[in-house]
Amino acid sequence: MKVIVAERCGFCHGVKNAISTAEKILTEEKQVYSLGAIIHNKDMVERLARAGLKTVDNVEEIQSGTVIIRSHGAAPEQIAKLKKKGLKIIDATCVLVKRVQQIAKELNNAGYKVVVIGNENHPEIQAVVGCARDVAVVADESDLHKLPKNSKLGIVCQTTESPEHFGKMLGAIGKREFSELKVINTLCKEAIKRQESAVEVCKQVDIMFVLGGLKSANTCKLAELCKKYNNQTFHLQNWNELDKNVVCGKNIAGVTAGASTPEWIIAEFVKNLEALDTGG
Amino acid sequence: MKVIVAERCGFCHGVKNAISTAEKILTEEKQVYSLGAIIHNKDMVERLARAGLKTVDNVEEIQSGTVIIRSHGAAPEQIAKLKKKGLKIIDATCVLVKRVQQIAKELNNAGYKVVVIGNENHPEIQAVVGCARDVAVVADESDLHKLPKNSKLGIVCQTTESPEHFGKMLGAIGKREFSELKVINTLCKEAIKRQESAVEVCKQVDIMFVLGGLKSANTCKLAELCKKYNNQTFHLQNWNELDKNVVCGKNIAGVTAGASTPEWIIAEFVKNLEALDTGG
Repeated sequence: MKVIVAERCGFCHGVKNAISTAEKILTEEKQVYSLGAIIHNKDMVERLARAGLKTVDNVEEIQSGTVIIRSHGAAPEQIAKLKKKGLKIIDATCVLVKRVQQIAKELNNAGYKVVVIGNENHPEIQAVVGCARDVAVVADESDLHKLPKNSKLGIVCQTTESPEHFGKMLGAIGKREFSELKVINTLCKEAIKRQESAVEVCKQVDIMFVLGGLKSANTCKLAELCKKYNNQTFHLQNWNELDKNVVCGKNIAGVTAGASTPEWIIAEFVKNLEALDTGG
Repeated sequence: MKVIVAERCGFCHGVKNAISTAEKILTEEKQVYSLGAIIHNKDMVERLARAGLKTVDNVEEIQSGTVIIRSHGAAPEQIAKLKKKGLKIIDATCVLVKRVQQIAKELNNAGYKVVVIGNENHPEIQAVVGCARDVAVVADESDLHKLPKNSKLGIVCQTTESPEHFGKMLGAIGKREFSELKVINTLCKEAIKRQESAVEVCKQVDIMFVLGGLKSANTCKLAELCKKYNNQTFHLQNWNELDKNVVCGKNIAGVTAGASTPEWIIAEFVKNLEALDTGG
C-alpha cells in the first residue's frame, strides 16, 4: 500500500541526547543505572538494557555506580538522595524540561501559586512539582476546583501538550476569579511541529499509524490529535502489534512517530507496510 | 404587571462619586466643564447641564474655569494640555479605571506589549491606551492578528467586561504563539455582581428591560448577557422609549439598570410598568 510518512517525526534533540549519553557512559562505566525508563520506549529501553543499562524505580535500589537522570528529569529531593549516597550523577534531562523546573521555582519564589497543566502521573510533571513549594497540577477543566480563587497564579504547561489544550485551559482559568496570571509558554516547539505535521498527514490518508511508547506523553498527544481528524488512527509500539485486518481494503496509510520512537522502528514499519497488498 | 427588579443595579461607587463631585463643584464655581459626557447617561447629563455643567468634546473648547475629568478618565496627553492652559482640574476618574491606567503603564515599563481587551472607541479604553507606549486593543478574536507572535504580552481588560468574555479572549490568545502572558484582572467586581444579578432575573421573566445609556459599556454588556438567556430583552434609556406593544400578553417583567442609570429613571419605569394592565 501507499505510505506517507510525516515530515517531522521520531527522535527529538532531548531524546537523542539522553540515548547518546547513556551509550557513551555504558562504554566507560561498569554499573550504570537509569532512574525510571530513560525514555518512554520499550524497544529502546530493551536495547540499552542489553548493553548494560539497569533501569530502577527507586533510589533505594542503587548501592553504587553511576546514575543517569532520564530525559523527563528528577525531583530535587531524589537528586539529593543520590548525592547523599555518593553516587556519580549524569544529568540527561531535556533542556526544555529543565527550563520548566527552573520557571516553576522562580514563579514560586515570586509569590505565585504554581499551576502545572499536565498529567500528574507523568515523570516530567512529578519532577516539576518537586521543584515548587506551592503547586497544583491540572489536567483538564474538571481539576480547576484545585485552584484558589482571587489569587496570583503562575502557569506552566507540560512540554508535550498542544497549543490548543494550553489555550483551552487558560480560557477556563481566565473565566474564574483570579487576581493575576503569569503564564510562561513552556511548550516544546519541536513537539508542536510534529503535531502539525501529523495532523496534515492524517487528513490525507485512509488509515493513520502513530508509532511509539504507550506511556510516551508526546506520542499519546499525536494519537489524540490524529483521532480528531481521522477516526482510523492506531497507536502502536511496533510492526508486531499491527492487526493486518485493519488495513484491509485501504489505499493510503499515514505514519508518524513520537519523539522517543527510534528510527529503526519507523523504517521497519514503513517498509513492511509498503510491501503489503491490502486489496485497496 | 408583576415586576422583578435585579438585586444589584443602578449607580455604582464610581458614578456616584463623579456625580456628587460635579454637583459640589457646580455650587462653588461659575465655569465648570466636563471633558466628554461625565457618565454615559443622557438624562443625568441633561440634569447636570441645567445646573450649569458644560460638556465639551475637546480641550480646545475650554478657555478658562474648572474641568472635571469624567468617570472614564482622560489620557495623560489631554491632562497635560489642560494643565498647560492653566485650568483647574478636578479628577472624577473611577478608581478602578485609574488602576487599569496605572497597570498598563507598569506593564509597558516592565517590557510587555500591553493588550487591552475592550472597545477601542470607548473613552475608558482610549484613556488607558494613552497611558502606554506599546499597546494594542482587541475587542474579539478577529482582532488577534494585531498581536505580535512569540512575545511578552501584558493583558488587561475593560472594567465592565464579563469574566466569560475575558476568559474566552485569554483562551484564544493562549492558543497562539506567545512567549509570556502577564494578565491582571481589571474587571469591576461590582459590574460582575450586576451581570450575575441581571442574568438571574432575566431567566425568571417573560420580558426583560435593561435601562441605561446606549453608549454605556456596562449597560450594553448587561443587555448582551440578558439576550443570551432571554430573547425578549430590551435596552431602553427611560420609560418614554417603551413601545407598550412589547409587553402585551406578558405576565412578569424583569428590570435591571446600568451603573450610570439614575435611581429616578429606574423608579419611574418600575412604577409605570407595575401599573400597566398587559392582559397577561
